[in-house]
Amino acid sequence: MLPDFVGRLSALLGPAQIVADPHGLAPYVQDWRGRYSGTALCAVFPRITAEVSAVVQVCAEAGVAIVPQGGNTGMCGAATPEAGPPCIVLRLDRMNRVRSVNPLDNTMVVEAGCILADIQTAADGVDRLFPLSLGAEGSCQIGGTISTNAGGTAVLRYGPMRDLVLGIEAVLPDGRVLNKLTRLRKDNTGYALKQLFIGAEGTLGVITAAVLKLFPKPRTSAVAMATADSVENALGVLARLRGEVGDRLSAFEIISHSQYDLVFAHMDNLTSPFAAPAGWYVLIELSDTLAGIDLLAVMERILGEAIERGELEDAVVPTSEAKAQMLWRIRHSVSEANKRAGLSVSHDTAVPLDRQPEFVAETERRIRALRPDANVLFVGHIGDGNIHAIAHFGHAAFPDAAAFEGVASQINQIVDDVTIALEGSISAEHGIGISNRKRLAQIAAGPELDVMRRIKDAIDPQRLMNPGKVLMPLRSEQPVRIAAKRSRK
Amino acid sequence: MLPDFVGRLSALLGPAQIVADPHGLAPYVQDWRGRYSGTALCAVFPRITAEVSAVVQVCAEAGVAIVPQGGNTGMCGAATPEAGPPCIVLRLDRMNRVRSVNPLDNTMVVEAGCILADIQTAADGVDRLFPLSLGAEGSCQIGGTISTNAGGTAVLRYGPMRDLVLGIEAVLPDGRVLNKLTRLRKDNTGYALKQLFIGAEGTLGVITAAVLKLFPKPRTSAVAMATADSVENALGVLARLRGEVGDRLSAFEIISHSQYDLVFAHMDNLTSPFAAPAGWYVLIELSDTLAGIDLLAVMERILGEAIERGELEDAVVPTSEAKAQMLWRIRHSVSEANKRAGLSVSHDTAVPLDRQPEFVAETERRIRALRPDANVLFVGHIGDGNIHAIAHFGHAAFPDAAAFEGVASQINQIVDDVTIALEGSISAEHGIGISNRKRLAQIAAGPELDVMRRIKDAIDPQRLMNPGKVLMPLRSEQPVRIAAKRSRK
Repeated sequence: MLPDFVGRLSALLGPAQIVADPHGLAPYVQDWRGRYSGTALCAVFPRITAEVSAVVQVCAEAGVAIVPQGGNTGMCGAATPEAGPPCIVLRLDRMNRVRSVNPLDNTMVVEAGCILADIQTAADGVDRLFPLSLGAEGSCQIGGTISTNAGGTAVLRYGPMRDLVLGIEAVLPDGRVLNKLTRLRKDNTGYALKQLFIGAEGTLGVITAAVLKLFPKPRTSAVAMATADSVENALGVLARLRGEVGDRLSAFEIISHSQYDLVFAHMDNLTSPFAAPAGWYVLIELSDTLAGIDLLAVMERILGEAIERGELEDAVVPTSEAKAQMLWRIRHSVSEANKRAGLSVSHDTAVPLDRQPEFVAETERRIRALRPDANVLFVGHIGDGNIHAIAHFGHAAFPDAAAFEGVASQINQIVDDVTIALEGSISAEHGIGISNRKRLAQIAAGPELDVMRRIKDAIDPQRLMNPGKVLMPLRSEQPVRIAAKRSRK
Repeated sequence: MLPDFVGRLSALLGPAQIVADPHGLAPYVQDWRGRYSGTALCAVFPRITAEVSAVVQVCAEAGVAIVPQGGNTGMCGAATPEAGPPCIVLRLDRMNRVRSVNPLDNTMVVEAGCILADIQTAADGVDRLFPLSLGAEGSCQIGGTISTNAGGTAVLRYGPMRDLVLGIEAVLPDGRVLNKLTRLRKDNTGYALKQLFIGAEGTLGVITAAVLKLFPKPRTSAVAMATADSVENALGVLARLRGEVGDRLSAFEIISHSQYDLVFAHMDNLTSPFAAPAGWYVLIELSDTLAGIDLLAVMERILGEAIERGELEDAVVPTSEAKAQMLWRIRHSVSEANKRAGLSVSHDTAVPLDRQPEFVAETERRIRALRPDANVLFVGHIGDGNIHAIAHFGHAAFPDAAAFEGVASQINQIVDDVTIALEGSISAEHGIGISNRKRLAQIAAGPELDVMRRIKDAIDPQRLMNPGKVLMPLRSEQPVRIAAKRSRK
């Protein structure tokens, strides 16, 4: 039956839209970091929504599961099939048309397979900004960023993907098309179905197109770096800045001295703008659509006042673009420096701002109690509550990978415990996928998880849409017909 | 059994928290405009979440429906019981504590029964803004504004209620408490349950508390009124303004000449700032958190350029607060003037900006074809796509109420048809409730309505939560045990 099934898909789409040989399939059945891999009958490449619909319908009839996959750049394995009941990988690459760009109402209608960078370029072409920006923007697809509610560097000012989507088109698990491609900003007609599909990681259906919000382009900006002796003081500056400049605050990043020093110890061509060492470093960016406004003067005044109040120790406000870029380069060197310096156990945490000082102190204390040789680093978009705690070790700290993994899992537990105690999120922006489904099942146990399961079962009663992602796979989640077949083996 | 049921609730809550006599019940079983009324066994007034939970659990066991009710200020009857199977009205008045105000992270945790105006005041007390603002703010409760995803005057700048809520606490239809009272701005852990409850009009559960977003307070503003000869030209100005001033654009209202003239014909103490008549009038407001910025100069320059380009015919930018308020008074006099002048058939429409000219022309054409004596007025928050079409008639235009209702329903159909053809929304901000459920069932027929029904059934399988609102009542929606009882009568 299974070869027949691939043949049926091939007849439906044409052979050029199917990959079934193991070599060709390889890139689609593992995640880009090589952490997860599985099996699939084939990968299909539909070009239009009707083809996605037809494929899903055939799968629903045959009881074959579907793993939607965009650019395969996710952090949690949400787009990777697992070993288990037969499934197909549904790639959105060829649905990559920009259907329309509407500068008048600041919207853009795009298909799921559009590359994020291409969308940014198309927006730029009509003098608008599409603000989502993240490391993988050259290869990630917009459908994936919607399905994972991606974050990135512009969340403080523009919000996560959820805030940037006005409408979606999605193929439901039975193949029907849900068309909510509205360009409206106000529409109170029933349940927020769009919001349910955003961040559902393909477990409720396949997003095939979306209406995105565009924004006026910033025409002026100012960057500064400052030092503070505590997270509390840095947060005090954040509050004052926001109160005065409002949405002009487009970045407020924090770096612990441990992280800052490690960057300079391992990276070349970087110059620290500060003579004296400090406890914490903040990188601040203001931007504005009005070309005429003097943001440097605003920045200098506000940071000057913070120094006078004793909240900041020092600050630099470069007047040249080159010097501003040097400050950003320090921030952007963090990942590379940590990699060069040794092994990292990283976390994607958000905690409320007023709990950040406690988070930082308690995380460091507990990790050091477990492993006194850990260098505990903090870096993050603290402006939106997202702080990454990193336990860092020298290359020679562990005898083997297993020993490292053992310690890593203890550290994960520490950071999770502290995060939950402080009303935080264990996955601020990366999502759940495979990586965090077990942790989600623990922290959301009770009504929350139950409601999620009910929704999943209501919309995908056959449990064929990206099974085992977000929600832990259930015994009963084996596709019915396939499970019956397997039991006869 | 029914008297027993009220007795059981009384024993649970104490008699001071129940109203069961017909006189006391009267205000809770009809909507404030007197358009809808129904019956209820009693109204209950829980003080804490645990009491809401207990009441809901008792109702679930007995198969008695629940109509959650806040300030009873809604426009569509969503908080009004209907005649039919026994239900109770669950009032949130006494859950009116502000649990915390957090200026550092710009959040506020409030209970559902808090009055909107009190929340605005509490935010103001820590030098912050809670931007939701609407006519009923002195009596509407925040739980109701969340459940209906209220809009109001600040949507252009701050978004509707959906954008202002970080977390919710809700009692599910079986009495369990869903606690998602997060203060986080980034949290990617599972389905967006919060979003599902926002705008669900109490059909999925009872929202008992919420975390709201606060904003820095604007410290300077500028108001202007301008005239244009077409909607297209007014929209051109809107696009340019937004491109330059970004989020400073806090209002962009449009008024047709028909509406403008009617205001001046029926209201005293208003002075038009324009000597010559015009086709369309726009009211523009800019605001900024930075006190130092000269918004008047920015406004004058941009409107000056628009006049030079021929997009605007004339513009006034008052330099005194009193004159600015006069311009707003013109806008705010619309409802009262229309009431004095005769009878209105009003609509709460949103259409994409580039379809607005067509909407205006086509609506007017078709209404005039039906009733040449209709004065077709347009007024609205065109900046966010929300335009109100009003067919206006003199007091003596109809022999009786039935004749008026007949014409009104034909006009409604016209406006709905044009709206749907132009990819618009038949309920931009007022919601569905009882008023629009039939229309929703028509326009969302197919997968959309089916998914809504599945979600409703998954979360509220007994169909006891505000039955018949949003989704049309089904035959089978009669509460099971009660229905059995009634059939024996």
